[in-house]
Amino acid sequence: MTALKNDRFLRALTGQSADMTPVWMMRQAGRYLPEYRATRKQAGDFLSLCKSPELACEVTLQPLRRYAMDAAILFSDILTIPDAMGQGLYFTEGEGPRFRKIVRTEADVLALPELNTARDLSYVTDAVSVIRRELNGSVPLIGFSGSPWTLATYMIEGSGSKDFRHAKSFMYNQPEAMHLLLDKLARAVADYLNAQIAAGAQAVQIFDTWGGVLSTPAYQQFSLAYMKKVVQQLTRVSEGREVPVILFTKNGGLWLEDIADSGCDCVGLDWTIDIGRARARIGSKVSLQGNMDPSILYATPQSIRAEVGRILQDFGPGNGHVFNLGHGITPDVDPQNVAVFVESVHELSQQYHQGNAG
Amino acid sequence: MTALKNDRFLRALTGQSADMTPVWMMRQAGRYLPEYRATRKQAGDFLSLCKSPELACEVTLQPLRRYAMDAAILFSDILTIPDAMGQGLYFTEGEGPRFRKIVRTEADVLALPELNTARDLSYVTDAVSVIRRELNGSVPLIGFSGSPWTLATYMIEGSGSKDFRHAKSFMYNQPEAMHLLLDKLARAVADYLNAQIAAGAQAVQIFDTWGGVLSTPAYQQFSLAYMKKVVQQLTRVSEGREVPVILFTKNGGLWLEDIADSGCDCVGLDWTIDIGRARARIGSKVSLQGNMDPSILYATPQSIRAEVGRILQDFGPGNGHVFNLGHGITPDVDPQNVAVFVESVHELSQQYHQGNAG
Repeated sequence: MTALKNDRFLRALTGQSADMTPVWMMRQAGRYLPEYRATRKQAGDFLSLCKSPELACEVTLQPLRRYAMDAAILFSDILTIPDAMGQGLYFTEGEGPRFRKIVRTEADVLALPELNTARDLSYVTDAVSVIRRELNGSVPLIGFSGSPWTLATYMIEGSGSKDFRHAKSFMYNQPEAMHLLLDKLARAVADYLNAQIAAGAQAVQIFDTWGGVLSTPAYQQFSLAYMKKVVQQLTRVSEGREVPVILFTKNGGLWLEDIADSGCDCVGLDWTIDIGRARARIGSKVSLQGNMDPSILYATPQSIRAEVGRILQDFGPGNGHVFNLGHGITPDVDPQNVAVFVESVHELSQQYHQGNAG
Repeated sequence: MTALKNDRFLRALTGQSADMTPVWMMRQAGRYLPEYRATRKQAGDFLSLCKSPELACEVTLQPLRRYAMDAAILFSDILTIPDAMGQGLYFTEGEGPRFRKIVRTEADVLALPELNTARDLSYVTDAVSVIRRELNGSVPLIGFSGSPWTLATYMIEGSGSKDFRHAKSFMYNQPEAMHLLLDKLARAVADYLNAQIAAGAQAVQIFDTWGGVLSTPAYQQFSLAYMKKVVQQLTRVSEGREVPVILFTKNGGLWLEDIADSGCDCVGLDWTIDIGRARARIGSKVSLQGNMDPSILYATPQSIRAEVGRILQDFGPGNGHVFNLGHGITPDVDPQNVAVFVESVHELSQQYHQGNAG
């Protein structure tokens, strides 16, 4: 394997010094880029794009050609696992993901097969291998999965949801069946992430997009507990290097201490929590990733730069910060504003890393 | 004025003892009730229902005929203020509120007239008077308004929004114009709530539905600061009795201490924050209202009762808790489940109020 030319991201995740704060963006390979829209058109539809290792590699690399991102993230969908379990994922224009099969009873849960990553998700591990080869050591590659709870919500609702009525009723009325489902999904997520690591992912992130819609005890029992199970089963060293794990619960600011205790290396923050307060609460136990409001990318370059500066100052001097948005970049952002964002992070962060051997 | 027969709600808001925990529900006059849907049909449309004091009174009283609620809340819309300022509120089926005029520049802000409640919102104060007369002292009546920030988001977006792109761009790019708008809205909200109090509202709640989409410093400067301005201007004693003020910021759990410092009497909690932790953080400085996940009303009676019990236990013995949902009740709930909810609160809470002179 080629040596890694830029390891700022991996160093920050494990609390080591660097010359500046690394930066990447959730959903950085996405619709705000005209070249992404062109490749997606070429693929035909979104799932075909995900299922082609070559095209998935192409869109993964597109933001890196424009911006000095410190990490690449595998282009894929968070719902590949339930699709591979036979639930029949499809997308309807403007309405997001849907499943042909829906899980609503204990019998439905029992009928779900165990995930066979090698057989049913080889298009993902193939994409990881192709991307690693094409990156050629320029920056590290992040693998990812949805969290067990987040996957479960889509499998039970059959689609996205505003109030998660069915997922929550299932959880409150049939807690044992829900635990059975989440247990199966935790095994699947761990297996899936380990396959990505074996194929070359150098860090992994678990996206708990919908953990934040739960009450505190429900979050602990039905979301965080299963992310912990995943973390415990992960391969933590590969190619002679630590493989850091990032947990990101959107709207999880109330539970930071609990998330930091999960065994992960880094806690992803959305934009509602103050990163300075988060650091004060967690200390240097884990690294922090975030946390700029994605909507600021709609503002002027001056406003973007000012907000980057505020967040860097709020985190303060020292290591353990990966700059990112607090959620995925939105489709209507001007790509030029992303350049301002990335350059501002690199330029304005250097003052907080002085005395560090980068 | 008739003496108040049930003052549990007002006593809990001001930290006084009661025989059991009072309960009401946000959006308790709403679409889950068939009699509400019938009255709305009779009115023709939603705004005509809001603008008829007699019909607004009718739907306000409907949930009280079915359930032993400890408070009534004025039936109205949170966007009456911008409508009265000439912005042209209307509703499209299934798409929520929209405005004919949109605020996007400093000139738009300067052109907005000051609110004249007596002239343009007499249908609201008339409704308050009619409801008070019809309640005949059975339970107290809550008045309400949207928060300045929440009103501003609709006025700038022109409708609801997923990412508040325009409101946030306006805030980041033209902060002075935004402060001018919020200042005008804070005066309007205070005037509007004082008119409701003068007409007979015995407590008021400020709904900050969208404060929780902001970063911490933006919340402080653009939402909380203006709710404080409103609170400072409110009539706090009427009819010889204190008029308590409730502030409710959805997704505001990170900022409870700051909200409790605003001068309000009670902090409304959504369902993501643990009420026991909230009480530990705030102490007895203010009362707490909340905080059951509205989705639990889709579950079985047993699950509803268990969750009510868990929240009561979590708050623990003592005064200062108004039971409520963490957000408005949703349209598809079975009305029988609401009966289970209200009865469970009254029945299960008595053990935590023993030794209290009710």
